[in-house]
Amino acid sequence: GRPPTPPAPVPAPPPASARGGSWAAVQRERGRLVALVTSGGTQVPLEARAVRFLENFSSGRRGAASAERLVRAGYGVCFLHRARSAFPWARALPPPGPALLDALRVQPGPSVAADPDALPGLVPALLGYQRAKEAGALLPLEFTSLTEYLALLRAAARALAPFGSSVMFYLAAAVSDFYIPASEMPEHKIQSSEGPLQVMHFLLGTGPYSVPCWISLAKSVIWSEIWLLDLMC
Amino acid sequence: GRPPTPPAPVPAPPPASARGGSWAAVQRERGRLVALVTSGGTQVPLEARAVRFLENFSSGRRGAASAERLVRAGYGVCFLHRARSAFPWARALPPPGPALLDALRVQPGPSVAADPDALPGLVPALLGYQRAKEAGALLPLEFTSLTEYLALLRAAARALAPFGSSVMFYLAAAVSDFYIPASEMPEHKIQSSEGPLQVMHFLLGTGPYSVPCWISLAKSVIWSEIWLLDLMC
Repeated sequence: GRPPTPPAPVPAPPPASARGGSWAAVQRERGRLVALVTSGGTQVPLEARAVRFLENFSSGRRGAASAERLVRAGYGVCFLHRARSAFPWARALPPPGPALLDALRVQPGPSVAADPDALPGLVPALLGYQRAKEAGALLPLEFTSLTEYLALLRAAARALAPFGSSVMFYLAAAVSDFYIPASEMPEHKIQSSEGPLQVMHFLLGTGPYSVPCWISLAKSVIWSEIWLLDLMC
Repeated sequence: GRPPTPPAPVPAPPPASARGGSWAAVQRERGRLVALVTSGGTQVPLEARAVRFLENFSSGRRGAASAERLVRAGYGVCFLHRARSAFPWARALPPPGPALLDALRVQPGPSVAADPDALPGLVPALLGYQRAKEAGALLPLEFTSLTEYLALLRAAARALAPFGSSVMFYLAAAVSDFYIPASEMPEHKIQSSEGPLQVMHFLLGTGPYSVPCWISLAKSVIWSEIWLLDLMC
């Protein structure tokens, strides 16, 4: 017999800047206005091999609901969100715990059906999601750390530069105004046996992310965090 | 016509100690061994009206998988877990985002069915969950903050005291070894305009939670966090 054929290598997904660029080109072809919506909270690691994190909490419900409404109003929406925070149209589903397990029923076959009484908003939500997906109106990008958030925000803003001042920036994410530079970060878990933990945070704005001029180019900037005021140049 | 009848007040759920006590009585009647499994990470607020939190990250997958296996092996499991961390049998479902929306299909009716190719483990997971639920073998209790975790751990351990040394403590949660006493906590959001943020953490073990003797009564204690060694008396 023949030797087994090795599986074809899975191509890596294109970086966010490339995905943002091709998505933006589609929005322009279709004559859509575009919005960049940020949502959810950032995470700042306290150690290089991190066990502990500083979190700015946000469920992401406001950002996810706003993204849905903007798509319904005809916008193309780049949705820059914290991994596992609220997602447009998925707000109709409870988190993967008892409420979701109780709402799913095993039927003869066997197959699984959703209980319409437990999930009354699910059908319209799925139809809304499918319409947005088929229209290519939503570009979801995920961040977890503050560093990822800032890098993606810059990449997305640059990809949307061809729209000029017609882009809407809707910055609903809860963004840390503190971070620990890599050079100051302890390598391993801070040991409690060494006594009380003293964590020094550094002001954002003194580091490499101090001057995001590209944000000030936008026509509409809606922010929920004071720090952006300081950062606009 | 008659005046509208006011809706009956919804009774508050019984506190964890009462739920734990009646659940433990059922396990004893049925001759089950019991295990207390903790899972997920704790949250420590940095302000009284908190915007920022110190998080010990844990997905909770190990604790959730262990709870499933223990129930399958005949144990009654008290599952003390971080809200929205991995939940037994719900590991077969992706988080409520694009992967879950893509796996749910609107069918004529309309109704919603799960795509068996996208969610191959869902049917056995739902059957396992339903068996555990009907048998009353799983008691899920949720925590978010470190304070809630410790209070629930104590209440659950006390509810399981009638089992004596046959209880298994399986402490898979990622628990902070630092907390900020309420008396030392700033009331409002710490302002970044006041300069670099300096956060002083206090060693757990000097506060009200220093001597949980009830843990040392258990026959099997499996821990994943060093701090418990210090706390056992």
